[in-house]
Amino acid sequence: MTRFEALVEVTLRPGIADPQGATIEKALAALGFDRISNVRAGKAFRLHVEAANEDEARKRVADLCQRFLTNPVIEDAAISLEPAAPADR
Amino acid sequence: MTRFEALVEVTLRPGIADPQGATIEKALAALGFDRISNVRAGKAFRLHVEAANEDEARKRVADLCQRFLTNPVIEDAAISLEPAAPADR
Repeated sequence: MTRFEALVEVTLRPGIADPQGATIEKALAALGFDRISNVRAGKAFRLHVEAANEDEARKRVADLCQRFLTNPVIEDAAISLEPAAPADR
Repeated sequence: MTRFEALVEVTLRPGIADPQGATIEKALAALGFDRISNVRAGKAFRLHVEAANEDEARKRVADLCQRFLTNPVIEDAAISLEPAAPADR
């Protein structure tokens, strides 16, 4: 068993309205931050998963995203994995 | 001017209680996802920034995080930058 650290970035799917991102973008312009565009707000989860190898870890996290962490109708999940640092175990 | 795509991952600082992450972790165990631990919930922002070079882009996004996207007392921001895909321009 190896312990992996997963980062799950949950974003709204293309075409789904993102009022939070739009509000941030408008506010940034009003606050003097110009040349900023395409602001999209999402969620980030970090978790440790124990699995025999990276493929199994990715499969388990993808299953978990599909069933629990995201609403697959409106959200996509991007998963990145790396071996957990020994200090985090 | 180059257009960069920035990913800002906002996480609670170490030692700050994360009730959302703790609730997810407990629920996962109850739902049959075992061997998952250290669940932390955070936010992810994606945005496009125009700047002369990557250093300037990073500096502008860091300033924006510090002043607007995070609460620096309890949150950390990790910034990653890459050139924006031409199709996104």
